[in-house]
Amino acid sequence: MLTASLSSLQGSFTKLKANRGFELFVVGVIVVSALVIGAKTYQIPPYVLAALEVLDLFVTIFFMFEISIRFMGEDNKRAFFKDAWNIFDTLIVVVSVIPIENSDMALLGRLVRIFRVLRMISIIPELRLLLNSLIKALPQLGYVVLLMFIIFYIYAAIGSTFFGRINPVLWGDISISMLTLFRVMTFEDWTDVMYETMEVYGFSWIFFLSFIFFTAFAFLNMVIGIVVNVLEEENAIMRAEEAELSGELTLEHLDQKIEARFVELMQAIELKK
Amino acid sequence: MLTASLSSLQGSFTKLKANRGFELFVVGVIVVSALVIGAKTYQIPPYVLAALEVLDLFVTIFFMFEISIRFMGEDNKRAFFKDAWNIFDTLIVVVSVIPIENSDMALLGRLVRIFRVLRMISIIPELRLLLNSLIKALPQLGYVVLLMFIIFYIYAAIGSTFFGRINPVLWGDISISMLTLFRVMTFEDWTDVMYETMEVYGFSWIFFLSFIFFTAFAFLNMVIGIVVNVLEEENAIMRAEEAELSGELTLEHLDQKIEARFVELMQAIELKK
Amino acid sequence: MLTASLSSLQGSFTKLKANRGFELFVVGVIVVSALVIGAKTYQIPPYVLAALEVLDLFVTIFFMFEISIRFMGEDNKRAFFKDAWNIFDTLIVVVSVIPIENSDMALLGRLVRIFRVLRMISIIPELRLLLNSLIKALPQLGYVVLLMFIIFYIYAAIGSTFFGRINPVLWGDISISMLTLFRVMTFEDWTDVMYETMEVYGFSWIFFLSFIFFTAFAFLNMVIGIVVNVLEEENAIMRAEEAELSGELTLEHLDQKIEARFVELMQAIELKK
Amino acid sequence: MLTASLSSLQGSFTKLKANRGFELFVVGVIVVSALVIGAKTYQIPPYVLAALEVLDLFVTIFFMFEISIRFMGEDNKRAFFKDAWNIFDTLIVVVSVIPIENSDMALLGRLVRIFRVLRMISIIPELRLLLNSLIKALPQLGYVVLLMFIIFYIYAAIGSTFFGRINPVLWGDISISMLTLFRVMTFEDWTDVMYETMEVYGFSWIFFLSFIFFTAFAFLNMVIGIVVNVLEEENAIMRAEEAELSGELTLEHLDQKIEARFVELMQAIELKK
Repeated sequence: MLTASLSSLQGSFTKLKANRGFELFVVGVIVVSALVIGAKTYQIPPYVLAALEVLDLFVTIFFMFEISIRFMGEDNKRAFFKDAWNIFDTLIVVVSVIPIENSDMALLGRLVRIFRVLRMISIIPELRLLLNSLIKALPQLGYVVLLMFIIFYIYAAIGSTFFGRINPVLWGDISISMLTLFRVMTFEDWTDVMYETMEVYGFSWIFFLSFIFFTAFAFLNMVIGIVVNVLEEENAIMRAEEAELSGELTLEHLDQKIEARFVELMQAIELKK
Repeated sequence: MLTASLSSLQGSFTKLKANRGFELFVVGVIVVSALVIGAKTYQIPPYVLAALEVLDLFVTIFFMFEISIRFMGEDNKRAFFKDAWNIFDTLIVVVSVIPIENSDMALLGRLVRIFRVLRMISIIPELRLLLNSLIKALPQLGYVVLLMFIIFYIYAAIGSTFFGRINPVLWGDISISMLTLFRVMTFEDWTDVMYETMEVYGFSWIFFLSFIFFTAFAFLNMVIGIVVNVLEEENAIMRAEEAELSGELTLEHLDQKIEARFVELMQAIELKK
Repeated sequence: MLTASLSSLQGSFTKLKANRGFELFVVGVIVVSALVIGAKTYQIPPYVLAALEVLDLFVTIFFMFEISIRFMGEDNKRAFFKDAWNIFDTLIVVVSVIPIENSDMALLGRLVRIFRVLRMISIIPELRLLLNSLIKALPQLGYVVLLMFIIFYIYAAIGSTFFGRINPVLWGDISISMLTLFRVMTFEDWTDVMYETMEVYGFSWIFFLSFIFFTAFAFLNMVIGIVVNVLEEENAIMRAEEAELSGELTLEHLDQKIEARFVELMQAIELKK
Repeated sequence: MLTASLSSLQGSFTKLKANRGFELFVVGVIVVSALVIGAKTYQIPPYVLAALEVLDLFVTIFFMFEISIRFMGEDNKRAFFKDAWNIFDTLIVVVSVIPIENSDMALLGRLVRIFRVLRMISIIPELRLLLNSLIKALPQLGYVVLLMFIIFYIYAAIGSTFFGRINPVLWGDISISMLTLFRVMTFEDWTDVMYETMEVYGFSWIFFLSFIFFTAFAFLNMVIGIVVNVLEEENAIMRAEEAELSGELTLEHLDQKIEARFVELMQAIELKK
């Protein structure tokens, strides 16, 4: 009897999980939790803050409740933890439940509350799809990113070797130099950086201009690579659709049909002999 | 007799509305109204200002006259107000006719006169088409924009939590933080913003660099999305044109023709038996 | 006899004009004239300056000589002045020959000498082709440019109306405002411009952000428009090539062939009856 | 017997050269040499520096050893020096072996050690492929780059002629002017440059805006050129693959088959007469 009631409970959980209204309500709660986070960054009177704390508590409890429903509504308990989003959701819930005393941990607690907004992505299928396709596009770019890193590393090594004494704030060591080079790549006050070094090394403009050309060229290559990949995928999908539409009617099919009919015609002519 | 004269009046209005010369004249008046607006921003002698006021009055009256013609030339009065551009035109005319005394309202009056230039878009069909296609492209981007907003919101929440005390002007609350992040996204003096926070939190460059990478990647994704959409539409149009050109001559059609002829041949051979 | 020698002279001019070596020599002289212009911007000793003046005189005389050859080598003298590049070349030569005394005119003389470098484009066919294709791409963008100008004009009118008193240097009149908006569009210290106005009008960030979105969107649209146009042209060329390769062999042709053979077969069967 | 042992030695070198594990080990050594270079830019205690020197020596010796193996493993010794990457590798090794006393040369020695990181590209085939494709894309852009250089040169000549007296630091001679124009092209504080000149020449904004338009347009053209080229290549590859897949089955093939069968049918009918 107990197992029966448990089973019926799980059934109702599964239903609730699939319910569109429940999903919308969860999205609503996430929006509320986002608004609470935003509101706390303003100067607010104490009673509003108290209200926000209550809301925050409600969101925490609700998220705990919701993840439990999702977990219980799942038939295969193992499969639940194979989905990265489920792990992420569970982690967010567990960490926000832990009571925090230490002030350092309090900051972490605030961070976790902020990351709750990311649950928007885990709950809306379209966003999850979008993120997945973004992540899927990354590995193809692996070698271009490696090439860019090599360019950055070499220029940073040259930069900190030659310009390190001129301005240690910008060229002190190789990691600071890479940050400075990233700045140059975004064209942010890059001439100030260059003019300073040109006073000592008159030809340092070659360093900066060649760096800009190399990174711009590699970046362009990366963008074109993504565009071409996306277009190719689109083309492949389109062709598959076309092939489906035209059924089996291809040139090869036509060829076989003509062959078959020719044989029949020949037989008919033979028969009359 | 009255209805007859009214009907003939409406006929002449309809004719006038469709007249190309009248349209050009309306465009001319809009250009004049734009020039009047532009001229008023310069230091001008009083008599020129007086002349401009007269011109302004003329434009107001002419627009009232023109919208009346358009309204009367329309057979279906209800359809008139179903077109968003007609509502926009009427609103512009009505608001500029209202006598304004209050100084606050005077500013509004000037604004309305400026928005008259937008009538250029409502009167030139090509511009209307262009704007419509721009607006049509927006909804497809809905989810990318939502994703970008979530990225902005989370980073702004983190930013105002950690950097709020360092520089309240840039990170005071979540809305100011979002504006600052938009600035970082446009690379406008973003290193100044970063260096300031790095003095307190040495690893804040991770915050800025990851933000730039995420937004750049999402933005790139958005642009590629638009390009692919536009190219797909172009392809669809091109195919439709090709299909029209080649008439009904497809592989399937060829297949049926060969089938039909084969049947005829068989019948001819059968007959001879 | 005089006409004969004139005719033979024109013949040799025509030959010289078409000579590849002569063309290379002209390119060389243009490069020299460019170097002379460049050298004059440096602090140089008087004797080098004197040598440069001699070189400059040589270039002037050579260009006069070269344009004469080109003109005399042309059979149809009228056709010569129908080519915009010929008119440009002649103008450059004529203006540089006029003796200049006035100091204002001296500047013009220097400008004309600088524009001689543009002759590089008129003499190298590939560059002429490139420029023509660039110019050809412009008219298609007409309406997008008009839309962008309307956006700029409206925002400049609003800007000079509201911000004119805050900073007359940036928002004094509508033309200065348009320049400031172009600056905002290039993200050049745009936040400085915005923060200044936000002190008076707290919501002026809406003005700047909406402007950035509108222009970025219109600009994106323009770029996509060009890309699509170029790709379409490429596709059209590729198809034409394919059609040429496959000769007249199309589905329609195949259909007609099957039809013709069927008729022959039927006749052969008929004959046997 | 010596030749036999030499031959067997070469055989084992050839094997070692092709060994995947050896390749990975070389990559590892290059990464170590990169880390040594990076570590030296930090303030480090003397004993670490000593350790780094030892590591550096090991890398130098290993590279000498590795290039010898590669050279000995090569059957055709001439072919070895026909590969630009082999020459590059040998040069890096030879220069780093030369003992350096002079302080100027010491800097060169450090540079050579930095360039060792570039060996990462010569050892990883995918990076070598990527770089080759980047280099292959360059010549197609030749004329666009030439056009851009002409634009830069003419504007720099005009700039140094007119603005040379206003600010010699930015417009002193033609080469400095070109650097300033590159700065304007990257939108880096370009309005500061412009406002300065506008105080003397009120219309100098025409100079800057036209320059921005020309270079942006030429740049856009270059990017589109690359994109179209890449897409065309992709299309060509895709078609070749399709043609391979469909074998020889084309419309032409089908046409010939129909022709052949028709002839057979006619013969069969003829025979029966």
